Amino acid sequence: MFSVCSVCSVGTPSEKISSLQNPRIKQLVKLRDRRPRDEAGVFLVEGYRQIRRALEKGICITELYYSPDWFLGENEPALIAQAQDAGAQLFELSKDAFAKVAYRERPDGLLAVAPQWKRTLADIPAPAEGKAPFLLVVEAIEKPGNLGTILRSADAAGVDALIVCDPVTDLFNPNVVRASTGVLFSVPVVIASSTDVREWLREKQIRSVATTPSATDVYTATDLRGPLAIVMGSEQYGLSDYWLKEADARVVIPMAGQADSLNVAMATIITLFEAVRQRGE
Amino acid sequence: MFSVCSVCSVGTPSEKISSLQNPRIKQLVKLRDRRPRDEAGVFLVEGYRQIRRALEKGICITELYYSPDWFLGENEPALIAQAQDAGAQLFELSKDAFAKVAYRERPDGLLAVAPQWKRTLADIPAPAEGKAPFLLVVEAIEKPGNLGTILRSADAAGVDALIVCDPVTDLFNPNVVRASTGVLFSVPVVIASSTDVREWLREKQIRSVATTPSATDVYTATDLRGPLAIVMGSEQYGLSDYWLKEADARVVIPMAGQADSLNVAMATIITLFEAVRQRGE
Repeated sequence: MFSVCSVCSVGTPSEKISSLQNPRIKQLVKLRDRRPRDEAGVFLVEGYRQIRRALEKGICITELYYSPDWFLGENEPALIAQAQDAGAQLFELSKDAFAKVAYRERPDGLLAVAPQWKRTLADIPAPAEGKAPFLLVVEAIEKPGNLGTILRSADAAGVDALIVCDPVTDLFNPNVVRASTGVLFSVPVVIASSTDVREWLREKQIRSVATTPSATDVYTATDLRGPLAIVMGSEQYGLSDYWLKEADARVVIPMAGQADSLNVAMATIITLFEAVRQRGE
Repeated sequence: MFSVCSVCSVGTPSEKISSLQNPRIKQLVKLRDRRPRDEAGVFLVEGYRQIRRALEKGICITELYYSPDWFLGENEPALIAQAQDAGAQLFELSKDAFAKVAYRERPDGLLAVAPQWKRTLADIPAPAEGKAPFLLVVEAIEKPGNLGTILRSADAAGVDALIVCDPVTDLFNPNVVRASTGVLFSVPVVIASSTDVREWLREKQIRSVATTPSATDVYTATDLRGPLAIVMGSEQYGLSDYWLKEADARVVIPMAGQADSLNVAMATIITLFEAVRQRGE
């Protein structure tokens, strides 16, 4: 079934796998679901671009599964070598075995396993010298795609951290990893309860500004400079009563068209970039 | 197979269909593809919310296919009656037949056929009294989801029209219809060549401002008031050389994180809402 890999000049893999019944194959399929993922304390990173970004950001890849039959370009061997140098165990898969473990529609023959991490409010990095804290708080986001888009917006706007209150979607869901286009590896993300976040913000004297259609103050006419946490509600239910009441200010994004044209990810981008404009960052 | 529909009190359907070989069933499946859709000059609108919005906006629904086995709520009969009053021909489908024609993952038993329309630059409505023209021009967008999001942004920002230059994605692609959440039925969309659009904008003395990473002027420091057309490039290739050269101004959205964090749909929202802010609309 296997000959020595003609594509890769990297070291011999630990194992060559072609059986679909191999326990590693079964485990990789299971890791798409949250419970086995959390039990194992790891998550999946699929595809050349994502794995390259993970390595660039110093994410520790423990296992790298590859299948030359699926490779799309010529840079894969170099990436595999880089992962191996960084300590990843290598596994070469047959075409069929890789087809089974790939979760993308168009696999490119690369799938990595990396340990999950957890950050707490105490891990939020201090802003750069001379800059005020700038945070994004989101409540109970449900759709992986939205969480991915929000991560990208947070990265582009340069927030210090994304704080997810009472999460519904798992941060390490394969679709979040994919939709974040690697930003998951660079933007600090903290999971915490709303009450803990509220208390922490008060302690740090960071002003919380919640975006909600029920507000009367327009977001562009509200001061978004200084220590700031922008707070966004969930897709279906909007901002919770807790944050509606506890936020230091509430602002609205006026809309011209039908009421639900802006979803939470779109409203987040708009508010973040207005803050960036005001802050002159 | 069929008894009189116990759910609906509306008039008898023209036809009850349970055979998967029925020519209407086959045609509905074909309409997911562009060529048969264009040949027939119609498109599909699936689901309660979308069909309700189409009717609200005066879209002429010619055929309505429904299957009570799939209904999720109790409002379907009223919607069916409304469509019938507006001239739609009704067809009741068996559960299996509806499963075959539905393109959504979670069908709700309602699928409509409506005639396509075409708008030209001459159809762009004049802005409201006392307001300057405000247009969004996008080049060759490829992904239906992005075109849908851009439509929603255009609606929320209140542009007079969306102009799509040299389109790749068909406006009547089922995924555009879905991603636009009904905005397709209200925002005027014009398809035209870049050269025609450029000429038309000059004639109307509308200033074109293109967003591109290669610009040096920051979008927030550029005057976006007065007669304005914001021009956005395609996902993969960005702005074409034509628009890079022909636009009256080029602006950049400064980003803090990795280079590709903002996709075209996100950059569009940011630029549109900065224009809305400056214009005080």
